[in-house]
Amino acid sequence: MKKIQLILFGIGNVGSTFINQIIQAQKVFQQQGLEIEIPIILNSSTAFIKDEGVDENWKANFVDFGLPYQVEEIIDYVKTKNWQHVVAIDATASSEFVNNYTNLVENGFHIIAANKVANTLAYDDYEFFREILKENKKQFLYETNVGAGLPVVETIKNLHQSGEKVTKIRGVFSGSLSYIFNTFSEENKNFSDVVALAEAKGFTEPDPRVDLSGTDVARKLLILARELQLTYNLEDVKVKSLVPAHLAEISSVTTFQENITDLDEEFQLLKAELSENEVLRYIGELDVEKKILEVKLVKEQKENPLGALQGADSLFEIYTESYGNQPLVIQGAGAGAAVTARGVVSDVIKLAERIDCCN
Amino acid sequence: MKKIQLILFGIGNVGSTFINQIIQAQKVFQQQGLEIEIPIILNSSTAFIKDEGVDENWKANFVDFGLPYQVEEIIDYVKTKNWQHVVAIDATASSEFVNNYTNLVENGFHIIAANKVANTLAYDDYEFFREILKENKKQFLYETNVGAGLPVVETIKNLHQSGEKVTKIRGVFSGSLSYIFNTFSEENKNFSDVVALAEAKGFTEPDPRVDLSGTDVARKLLILARELQLTYNLEDVKVKSLVPAHLAEISSVTTFQENITDLDEEFQLLKAELSENEVLRYIGELDVEKKILEVKLVKEQKENPLGALQGADSLFEIYTESYGNQPLVIQGAGAGAAVTARGVVSDVIKLAERIDCCN
Repeated sequence: MKKIQLILFGIGNVGSTFINQIIQAQKVFQQQGLEIEIPIILNSSTAFIKDEGVDENWKANFVDFGLPYQVEEIIDYVKTKNWQHVVAIDATASSEFVNNYTNLVENGFHIIAANKVANTLAYDDYEFFREILKENKKQFLYETNVGAGLPVVETIKNLHQSGEKVTKIRGVFSGSLSYIFNTFSEENKNFSDVVALAEAKGFTEPDPRVDLSGTDVARKLLILARELQLTYNLEDVKVKSLVPAHLAEISSVTTFQENITDLDEEFQLLKAELSENEVLRYIGELDVEKKILEVKLVKEQKENPLGALQGADSLFEIYTESYGNQPLVIQGAGAGAAVTARGVVSDVIKLAERIDCCN
Repeated sequence: MKKIQLILFGIGNVGSTFINQIIQAQKVFQQQGLEIEIPIILNSSTAFIKDEGVDENWKANFVDFGLPYQVEEIIDYVKTKNWQHVVAIDATASSEFVNNYTNLVENGFHIIAANKVANTLAYDDYEFFREILKENKKQFLYETNVGAGLPVVETIKNLHQSGEKVTKIRGVFSGSLSYIFNTFSEENKNFSDVVALAEAKGFTEPDPRVDLSGTDVARKLLILARELQLTYNLEDVKVKSLVPAHLAEISSVTTFQENITDLDEEFQLLKAELSENEVLRYIGELDVEKKILEVKLVKEQKENPLGALQGADSLFEIYTESYGNQPLVIQGAGAGAAVTARGVVSDVIKLAERIDCCN
């Protein structure tokens, strides 16, 4: 039996689902010779410790027996345990928590992150952390940074590391924006009403401008570009924000919501310009040769995979030398707690395959 | 530097391309701390050995310096070398060569196979070989068995091993049959003419009945089902062959070709039955709950991913509990020497990540 202890930071939507998935999959893990436990779960202020791993009562236990903590104390505690393989799971969206990564790795933790922040830091910091990982022979997995549970990061990394020349990456990287444009293209509704619909379905962030600004798509594009060992930074991504300047400036979300109909005219015009066979798509695109990273609104033929996209699916086209003009396409739910948490579990399994007696 | 020695069995289309890809990717490998060499290349009768790894002149060298061999001799030779990590690459399509797998593994070889045979043996033999692998702590990778370089086997295995309930797998598993039905649906041609076109493009086997019989699709379906730890055998797959009995009986390929127009009437009728929005697709389908494995001809809506398929692309829909009604879809060139060979290289890289000082 290979024993792996997970220290879970972040017990929001994804973190909670992750705990339940780990508990329910115990039998499947054992069949693979794996014993996977979560002895410590933490939110930003409180830690609950149960050495033999939390069970179904973790939620009540966390409330009843959770204690305030410092990350340093957690590291010290884990050290006293002499666990063989320890993984910090970052299921937060915190930019501060990432500051602990180096310390964790230097103290023997592998890291699996749903949190995108570490991979969108300035390139020097990104590179520095990779050196730390190498020096300490520790793994860092983050498949869910892009496309939730879809095998996008892994596929692009594998192609590149196998010597395949990836020439272009292109697609709808965001579930919320997928839903918004798929719906806007199909139904006779104002753009603002479609955004409201996406909000009601829980697809957007509390402030939908986070989605509409294109920043999240730009982050994902950057993460994929860096898998190809391209040394770009976030400011290298040319982003066409869907939020006009006068709405971007407003600090109150409510005031923005009250004025969101300002978007309608422009999008109605864009729609009117489409030919019968075209739809609008908001995409990320990396052209490796032309050295262009872009987030932009494009017209797409309905019969192409991107044009045929439905629901809140994400879609990634990977163009390479061997695949030629027809890309490798990966498509499916690119957001949601269940698929994201499962993607994190999948990273745990991959990590288990890679670690052994010597690391 | 982690040093990996590849012993390549089979230097046909895929094997040759593989050698060239390995030679060209040396720099990429070194950046990952890998030294990957091919010290021995073999066809069914001849072996060429170059301890430091073959170079660009491998083809001429093979002709000039190749010698007859027995697999046992190759194993003995490799043993004298004390190479740390040795991988047998099976780029043959041979059902006999597979008989050497156990012997190879027991003598310290990992195995990477493009050859599907080992994974479609009777279930007991399949299971027995997995026991051998476990006992000897050796890896066996075969991503290219299904969908060439597309990450299908890996994705399904990862989902299953992460505790995700895969409920259905469905798709066009064969590049040649994809091309045939995509073309037949779009163009006003006889079915036999479309098959001839596929042959001319090199998509089909020399005897196109190998494709049209559905056996190849059935094999791939079985391989995927077994990744879910389902203990099916090939005879459990219900196959609707596209070759009528009187044509299946003919032993000569030429005589079959002369009578292939016998297929036209039936397919013309099937086409006539389609509504305007439908196309024909020849698919493999596994329904886990209903315990059904089928290879069959279906009508598909044009706007669905399967219906929108183009060229010779393969497409795999993976339905799971977390993904719900919208499947995870993987699509792209599912055949061809370049993508298949690259898939084998990718398996080498994955294997390199998994092996370490202790195995």
